[in-house]
Amino acid sequence: MATTTWTRRHVISLADFVPSEYDTVLQTAASFREVLSRRVKKVPTLQGQVVANLFFEPSTRTRNSFELAAKRLSADTLSFAQATSSLTKGETILDTAITYLAMGTNIMVIRHKEAGVPQAIANEMDRLQSQVSVLNAGDGQHEHPSQALLDLFTISSALDPDRPRLELLKDKKIAIVGDILHSRVARSNIWSLMGSGAEVHLAGPPTLLPLLFADYGKHRPGKLFLHWDLEPALQDADFVMTLRLQKERMSQHLLPSLREYHQLFGITRDRIQLCKPDVKVLHPGPVNRGVEISSDLMDDPQFSLISQQVTSGVAVRMALLYLIGGGKA
Amino acid sequence: MATTTWTRRHVISLADFVPSEYDTVLQTAASFREVLSRRVKKVPTLQGQVVANLFFEPSTRTRNSFELAAKRLSADTLSFAQATSSLTKGETILDTAITYLAMGTNIMVIRHKEAGVPQAIANEMDRLQSQVSVLNAGDGQHEHPSQALLDLFTISSALDPDRPRLELLKDKKIAIVGDILHSRVARSNIWSLMGSGAEVHLAGPPTLLPLLFADYGKHRPGKLFLHWDLEPALQDADFVMTLRLQKERMSQHLLPSLREYHQLFGITRDRIQLCKPDVKVLHPGPVNRGVEISSDLMDDPQFSLISQQVTSGVAVRMALLYLIGGGKA
Amino acid sequence: MATTTWTRRHVISLADFVPSEYDTVLQTAASFREVLSRRVKKVPTLQGQVVANLFFEPSTRTRNSFELAAKRLSADTLSFAQATSSLTKGETILDTAITYLAMGTNIMVIRHKEAGVPQAIANEMDRLQSQVSVLNAGDGQHEHPSQALLDLFTISSALDPDRPRLELLKDKKIAIVGDILHSRVARSNIWSLMGSGAEVHLAGPPTLLPLLFADYGKHRPGKLFLHWDLEPALQDADFVMTLRLQKERMSQHLLPSLREYHQLFGITRDRIQLCKPDVKVLHPGPVNRGVEISSDLMDDPQFSLISQQVTSGVAVRMALLYLIGGGKA
Repeated sequence: MATTTWTRRHVISLADFVPSEYDTVLQTAASFREVLSRRVKKVPTLQGQVVANLFFEPSTRTRNSFELAAKRLSADTLSFAQATSSLTKGETILDTAITYLAMGTNIMVIRHKEAGVPQAIANEMDRLQSQVSVLNAGDGQHEHPSQALLDLFTISSALDPDRPRLELLKDKKIAIVGDILHSRVARSNIWSLMGSGAEVHLAGPPTLLPLLFADYGKHRPGKLFLHWDLEPALQDADFVMTLRLQKERMSQHLLPSLREYHQLFGITRDRIQLCKPDVKVLHPGPVNRGVEISSDLMDDPQFSLISQQVTSGVAVRMALLYLIGGGKA
Repeated sequence: MATTTWTRRHVISLADFVPSEYDTVLQTAASFREVLSRRVKKVPTLQGQVVANLFFEPSTRTRNSFELAAKRLSADTLSFAQATSSLTKGETILDTAITYLAMGTNIMVIRHKEAGVPQAIANEMDRLQSQVSVLNAGDGQHEHPSQALLDLFTISSALDPDRPRLELLKDKKIAIVGDILHSRVARSNIWSLMGSGAEVHLAGPPTLLPLLFADYGKHRPGKLFLHWDLEPALQDADFVMTLRLQKERMSQHLLPSLREYHQLFGITRDRIQLCKPDVKVLHPGPVNRGVEISSDLMDDPQFSLISQQVTSGVAVRMALLYLIGGGKA
Repeated sequence: MATTTWTRRHVISLADFVPSEYDTVLQTAASFREVLSRRVKKVPTLQGQVVANLFFEPSTRTRNSFELAAKRLSADTLSFAQATSSLTKGETILDTAITYLAMGTNIMVIRHKEAGVPQAIANEMDRLQSQVSVLNAGDGQHEHPSQALLDLFTISSALDPDRPRLELLKDKKIAIVGDILHSRVARSNIWSLMGSGAEVHLAGPPTLLPLLFADYGKHRPGKLFLHWDLEPALQDADFVMTLRLQKERMSQHLLPSLREYHQLFGITRDRIQLCKPDVKVLHPGPVNRGVEISSDLMDDPQFSLISQQVTSGVAVRMALLYLIGGGKA
């Protein structure tokens, strides 16, 4: 395993991540990818420690990914099912977190539909002088750092499988397409990609890409561009990240129809001709086939990195759990 | 453990099982039954491998049985709760399966209310040249192979506890009673019992036992009989398998009432006098007491094999997971 | 671990617990508290054994506490989710328990909204001559013994951290405040506290504290007092146990409003001046902040033992699982 100087107790946001931190995550994840290729895919790193997956908002995919990462580090896992929880009995979220602390939890992985909940819990854990680490697994429209880090690992591994690192993305053109406004995945990715020195092109309909996103570009090595049309974003792109479209956007009058969305912003085999020949397409999943991306393109291993993203997810989450929890007494 | 020449990657249906395969399952399950009688009931066979229990249709009983089997082989388990899954977000079932593949799943145990889903997922896993194995844990009205194999293990163990094997069933009279039409348990059992050379007697009301079932008997060593009355099926029977009656059959006008069903097809202490003196009764559970079988008979260990079926379930599922997953890199 | 002469197979009620049993639980829990302070918080005591958490009534907190206790003893755990269970298919509770027995369960931890269910299952397990142990994790308004034992461990540890034991509570004044009538926590605590020789003062509005509770005090070393006002219960108290108030009590016309309840029976910084200067406050959780107890008092480590109760819960449940399951073949 890499020798590092990791000092962060919580991972809530990528807004203040520095390059050496990104590289530590990438390097550690690469080591765990090697573990995952062995016959016995477990290491004893977190044996006897407790990882609590507190998913106040349901998610099978991310929860399973964190759960598998924790199990492969030999941690014990606790999970929390919103429907049957004491929250329905009126307890506050902080009290729930304090209960898990008192049970002996070492790491809390938290998803909540409100932005700021993981930060509030991390603050409370620090105020109580606990040693507990908090990992944000998605909070409202704020951030989803483990998703952006697995995207970074997937992209940098596509550029150099043996030694994924941040500098590989410098000056690469990366398009992020879709419902930017409501996407915590987009926000976290903007931080990491801008931090790498990439050229980031956001594309979406005006209702889903307000101008305020231009501010995200300041004081970072990367360059940020906004487009209300798809074509300029795709032109010579090295990577295209598509975002999941929530179908409720239509009832909110932000979108006319899925069909029109696909006509304007769907990634298809035709449109992808605008990109670099070896362009790769990403999507955080689950995909609405034929909406964000055409079905055939999604399944084409020449272009699609979607399965690699899922695989990267386990390695990156092992890395995060290891880095924030591995050295504890 | 038995030295075998098992070559099957998936277990979807028993329609094409050959006698040596049945015997391999029985012999392997017998070995695991021995493991389960020890103080420490675990073996390291599947350590570091991932078994995903994908139950798109809810089932506590079968899911717990597979989960316990996987844990006793030291596998890591992932589980999927329909209610909170991303399927509610519009992802296709194949995409869900591909996500579990990409996470590193080695064996997928799949239950779905539609017939054919496990086969479709197995086909997709093969098309992608993955090494993943698929186990059908019940698909619609198609098949439930692990249930039929645990029934076979239970029956053959009743005939020879030390060496359960297929040939023990030859020429035994086995009645299957109830809602044959809608039962995947019945369909899988017909394949295994006809394969053993048993005499299989199906009995049920005409609405629940259509004539097309006569075709199931062709090209097998066993003999198949259909009865719209219970008595000829019970006459000199060695084993009576009762099927669970879904109460919604009545609202579908296929049954007049539970009471009338019990009067005509319920297994009672009186009726069982028609069978061989040492007849044994099976039921896949959960039982509607006083409907498919009278309550006192169900609890009488002289006749009932129902608890043994549950116990056999863990050993047989360990055997299946071992056979399809044990030798993998 | 302590050498003990524990002979109890099930823990259903504290009504017939004797002092040496309380002390064995306290002493064993103290040993496990030491295990929980180590880097690797696991012991192999229950390796290969199966603990089934059968929560017919939902509870994240108690279920997670038992699950963590079982995992730290290296048991395999099975869990039961009411919503997706075969109970919805009409199976009886005893049949469900027999199914878990047949799967190979060694210890059943049972919560049910009806009083008496854990006892009924324990009787059935004994009738079947199984070796299975049953732990009552809360049944209706009957008992919640593991909660009372963790309260006892918390209180006696507050009095002597190194050697918690029953005799420490002798002649201590302990107030139990709130909805006594509906509380299984109160009932179990009355048994243990009266058994210790403490002076137990119950306080609550007349609708929630009927006179029949006076009978609980007979034939025990402790003294029992009932109060329909808070003040005499708090006067010189050493410990104050507050009970959770179910909000549905108001719609049942047993309470005028949460606000009035708090005015009359809420524990506040002012009121606690009546108690001994080093008084400690307990609550089984989850707390309705500002109802049973004022928010600031709940968070004040000088007075509140609420987090210690949760921590004690894991150690006490490890002790119970160890004592009833540890020595089995």
